[in-house]
Amino acid sequence: MTAEQDALVIFTPSGKRGRFPLGTPVLTAARQLGVDLDSVCGGRGICSKCQITPGYGEFPKHGVTVHEDALSEWNAVEDRYKRIRGLIDGRRLGCQAKVMGDVVIDVPPESQVHKQVVRKRVEAREIRMDPSVHLHFVEVAEPDMHDPSGDLERLCDALRDQWGFENVTIDLPVLTTLQPTLRKGEWKVTVALHQEAATDRPRIMQIWPGLYEGSIYGVAVDLGSTTIAGHLCDLRTGEVVASSGLMNPQIRFGEDLMSRVSYSMMNPNGAAEMTAAVRGAMNTLFGQLCDEAQVDRTLIMDSVFVCNPVMHHLFLGIDPYELGQAPFALATSNALRLTARDLDLHLHPAARVYILPCIAGHVGADAAAVALSENPDKSEDLMLVVDVGTNAEILLGNTTKVLACSSPTGPAFEGAQISSGQRAAPGAIERVEIDPVTKEPRFKVIGCDLWSDDPGFAAATATTGVTGICGSGIIEMVAEMRLAGILDAQGLIGSPEQTGSDRLFLDGRTYSYLVHDGSATGGPKITVTNRDIREIQMAKAALYSGARLLMDKFGVDHVDRIILAGAFGAHISPKHAMILGMIPDVPLNKVTSAGNAAGTGARIALLNRAARAEIEATVRDIHKIETAIEPRFQEHFVNASAIPNAVELFPNLESIVSLPDVNFNTKTAGDEGGRRRRRG
Amino acid sequence: MTAEQDALVIFTPSGKRGRFPLGTPVLTAARQLGVDLDSVCGGRGICSKCQITPGYGEFPKHGVTVHEDALSEWNAVEDRYKRIRGLIDGRRLGCQAKVMGDVVIDVPPESQVHKQVVRKRVEAREIRMDPSVHLHFVEVAEPDMHDPSGDLERLCDALRDQWGFENVTIDLPVLTTLQPTLRKGEWKVTVALHQEAATDRPRIMQIWPGLYEGSIYGVAVDLGSTTIAGHLCDLRTGEVVASSGLMNPQIRFGEDLMSRVSYSMMNPNGAAEMTAAVRGAMNTLFGQLCDEAQVDRTLIMDSVFVCNPVMHHLFLGIDPYELGQAPFALATSNALRLTARDLDLHLHPAARVYILPCIAGHVGADAAAVALSENPDKSEDLMLVVDVGTNAEILLGNTTKVLACSSPTGPAFEGAQISSGQRAAPGAIERVEIDPVTKEPRFKVIGCDLWSDDPGFAAATATTGVTGICGSGIIEMVAEMRLAGILDAQGLIGSPEQTGSDRLFLDGRTYSYLVHDGSATGGPKITVTNRDIREIQMAKAALYSGARLLMDKFGVDHVDRIILAGAFGAHISPKHAMILGMIPDVPLNKVTSAGNAAGTGARIALLNRAARAEIEATVRDIHKIETAIEPRFQEHFVNASAIPNAVELFPNLESIVSLPDVNFNTKTAGDEGGRRRRRG
Repeated sequence: MTAEQDALVIFTPSGKRGRFPLGTPVLTAARQLGVDLDSVCGGRGICSKCQITPGYGEFPKHGVTVHEDALSEWNAVEDRYKRIRGLIDGRRLGCQAKVMGDVVIDVPPESQVHKQVVRKRVEAREIRMDPSVHLHFVEVAEPDMHDPSGDLERLCDALRDQWGFENVTIDLPVLTTLQPTLRKGEWKVTVALHQEAATDRPRIMQIWPGLYEGSIYGVAVDLGSTTIAGHLCDLRTGEVVASSGLMNPQIRFGEDLMSRVSYSMMNPNGAAEMTAAVRGAMNTLFGQLCDEAQVDRTLIMDSVFVCNPVMHHLFLGIDPYELGQAPFALATSNALRLTARDLDLHLHPAARVYILPCIAGHVGADAAAVALSENPDKSEDLMLVVDVGTNAEILLGNTTKVLACSSPTGPAFEGAQISSGQRAAPGAIERVEIDPVTKEPRFKVIGCDLWSDDPGFAAATATTGVTGICGSGIIEMVAEMRLAGILDAQGLIGSPEQTGSDRLFLDGRTYSYLVHDGSATGGPKITVTNRDIREIQMAKAALYSGARLLMDKFGVDHVDRIILAGAFGAHISPKHAMILGMIPDVPLNKVTSAGNAAGTGARIALLNRAARAEIEATVRDIHKIETAIEPRFQEHFVNASAIPNAVELFPNLESIVSLPDVNFNTKTAGDEGGRRRRRG
Repeated sequence: MTAEQDALVIFTPSGKRGRFPLGTPVLTAARQLGVDLDSVCGGRGICSKCQITPGYGEFPKHGVTVHEDALSEWNAVEDRYKRIRGLIDGRRLGCQAKVMGDVVIDVPPESQVHKQVVRKRVEAREIRMDPSVHLHFVEVAEPDMHDPSGDLERLCDALRDQWGFENVTIDLPVLTTLQPTLRKGEWKVTVALHQEAATDRPRIMQIWPGLYEGSIYGVAVDLGSTTIAGHLCDLRTGEVVASSGLMNPQIRFGEDLMSRVSYSMMNPNGAAEMTAAVRGAMNTLFGQLCDEAQVDRTLIMDSVFVCNPVMHHLFLGIDPYELGQAPFALATSNALRLTARDLDLHLHPAARVYILPCIAGHVGADAAAVALSENPDKSEDLMLVVDVGTNAEILLGNTTKVLACSSPTGPAFEGAQISSGQRAAPGAIERVEIDPVTKEPRFKVIGCDLWSDDPGFAAATATTGVTGICGSGIIEMVAEMRLAGILDAQGLIGSPEQTGSDRLFLDGRTYSYLVHDGSATGGPKITVTNRDIREIQMAKAALYSGARLLMDKFGVDHVDRIILAGAFGAHISPKHAMILGMIPDVPLNKVTSAGNAAGTGARIALLNRAARAEIEATVRDIHKIETAIEPRFQEHFVNASAIPNAVELFPNLESIVSLPDVNFNTKTAGDEGGRRRRRG
């Protein structure tokens, strides 16, 4: 047959095209052109992963006319498949349908191996599916006494001959199941192969008799100081089939990281106790995820973890002692490739563990994950990424360079160490407005869409009550208090006399603000004390001065945009954060939320193996700034203790709000009365 | 300085020579010439491994005169070393002594990394020391907050810069000890690195603070059906520091391999029970070895195991079911690289396990180890190697090709299933002579050098008694009975009438031979029954017919030499084995014993990492013969049941002994009386 008689085959959406002899199966044509068309069974007509949709008629764009007989007739294999399993009308099996004339073939997303996983945010890069574990169906030669060889060696030969894998190896627990599985499958088996990089030896993780039609799973975990959040993902589709979280049980050893490091220093077996606690919690989390998705936990074959350095060391079983003191030396900063068994994790017996690299002694794998998710290194704009948590990770950069640091904000933003603080849960105040004239607050609580002064609010919140103030609520509260003139720039709450409101009351040596008195209905009295204000001032000053230090190092005095990351970051009102002086001054529409970017970074590394090498290279290039040894950090911190700041200008903020110029400190030398001190 | 002013340095025994600028340390000169001179500390004058002996005076052979000032003067480091640790007179430290003139330098064996381990047998190849685990001393950079990196990453940098290792990795349990060890050693540590092949990533197995001056160890184990034998070896010197053995506890599940396979088939958890039993025995053996050598078992960093296929599978935790039936498929035949943890072995927490490749379903890693020890593939002569055990492994080959098979001899050669049989232990008859005229026996027992008819024998054996006949004893016994005319070629024992001796007595339907009556002193009556003769006939026929089948396949009717291997093989009298017809007819001086060749092969693979790839390549080239499917095996077996053989000629044997032509079967059709039937 000459090339002129060959048929033109055009694949969409890739646009790849080529000429093939009549009779070529569509799957073969796709493979030769490098078109992304899935197949687990290797073209044997049993896995149905290679479904395609032929297009008929005129295609002026491609310059072809596709006739009704452009593909071979519907065959018995497709017939049986459609009868038993069902097949969408218009679909064919790519391994059965043969090219008989010029044709346009569409590969639907579910037939693509490297399908894109859509991320909800418009600006976010989509994830290209290419996990470390893939399924492959093979037919294995039967043993021959005249040419003896092991069953494993013949399976490896099949993987080489039928799929091109060289030097395949196996985990011992799988080897022990090999012989009965091969015989049960009558020498046809489906193999789960782990291979992270082309230079790695592919490793057999699991073998099923015959064609395995189920899925395999991976778990992406963001191990935080306070909470542990996990996503269970289908490694074939990329779908998140379950998400769950729990409190980090290490909280009982210390609320923040340094108190846990202290615990390990003061208690001979302290680090080991905390290691056991966090690993145990992981196994609980896996149980929750599997229950939710109705998945057997032994089908979880891969896992990715991100965490800050102290959690990283404790999870690995390394005493975090060195992280508690200068020079804050990590035991290891590179990415780690381990097995679930190394960490006592109850997943598939041969499950793999990938832990993202740490950036520095205070900037962990969680920050690396944020970088992977948000890509400051690929941004033309100068981007500030702030992951707000008990410890804030801060990245500043663009395509020229990326700087990173961390700043110990403490748990105030998570509602801890705040007198009426609580975790984000139904009943917690999350939105606040304070009337600047009457100083009367109104608020919303989680679980109810009404404002507190709307009719029906009491009835709607009867079940949950009004129980406290969550992290994003306290930010709005403090900012609104500042905006309403009941809090001065130095962070002092005014007296009833100074503010003209009896919601202010003397509470020890300072004044507090009464937000809500639930005592009539048996609920708590919710107040904001001046001690609460101090906690928030410390936290926000730590965060701001870290960001400001990176700006110094970058040699800039403003940034183009800000991304607030972290589960909590998603709920922060940019305006209120800027009134507090938590973040540098930018146009409000340039502040966006990335949700749990660390968790997303973990999920990217789980679903796309190339992303691992990518983030490792990125982290090597990130410039690490150690705030503890930077003299300007302390200066920035002092300035940032004021609300919004003692010295920095906030022109964008001032264009939208006007902060009252009050000073409630009656004892200040050179007292300027109720007026704000001039900026230096 | 010009090249003419450079000094000539000649190293012995290598003969390597080169010119070096004056002032070059001897160690540096050695490294540049590729001379094998050890150093753990890398030339820092603290490990003393680089000791050398300079020669002075005339060296006509090398054409140089060495003056007294050819090396720099004795320095303070050497002085301190000699004072504190001692140094043999005439020795210098190679890293301290500098070349100041032409010099001849001898590298003593203990200063060579790749020293030769001497094997006792004259014909055996020596073992070149090059184990998979080596020690290296490094100085690690301290952490720097301005350029944060992990302690591990700086250790890896040091290993790269100071020793040339790229891509070093670490085991998690070692990583958890890294930080305190680096600080305890003040950033100087000794590292045990595992690297089997140049393409492998070197792996840190252990870290000691400062210079570690102790040794590290490996264990080579021959896991037999009946006994488990282990050698504990110093991985720096190659010395065997302890040897020990114990019974395989699996014996309680079945004496021979097939009965163990049956046990696993009949009992749901049978294979797992046997796996646990053998792994437990391994741990007991390691304890014995460590006690004997006073070595901490966590210093055992590498291990090599050889065993037959059924033991191989049970040790790995693989059900041996498939090995019990045609086509005798192995789960895996390739060599295995595992960790001690994979197999529940209590050694160093990161200890490595290497298991030699199996040759075929009936020819195991033990046969591969025999091939590694005896090298039939490197022999110009056609060499037959027979490893005699419960299962006999047989190799036949020369440089052109090597064939292998196994033959199920059963436990008769180990004294089992023999009425007066016993294991080789004090009191067991091991040597026998029978007077051809009187039919009176005399014998020696293990633990006594006297013959039983020597004066003082009774007194000398009073403690042990005469308790039974061991494996090598039974071979001599049966051969001597045949030689003395009390046993015919068919294996029938004659009556008192036929033999003229009242040591023969009717014992059921056949006759038995009384060897020794110990009943007067409370000992047993030791006899040889006709059933014993049948057992030995079966065993030796299996062995011979395996060898004969390989000769058929090779296309030869004789071999040049025979090596008897196995702990038991060492004790076999070649003459008696040939009278029995156990082995093919060769000149008696061409039959030698290799002792426990499988154990030696394991030790070679432990001490020389290159030997592993070598034996894997050899095994791939060995032609495997499955006796079960060879029609001629049965024919050879029937012929070999006669003593020595019904059809084969034994000209070498006939030149030294004359076998009586007797036939005790009075019921034979066409009875020829007492005369031997003519050969076919």
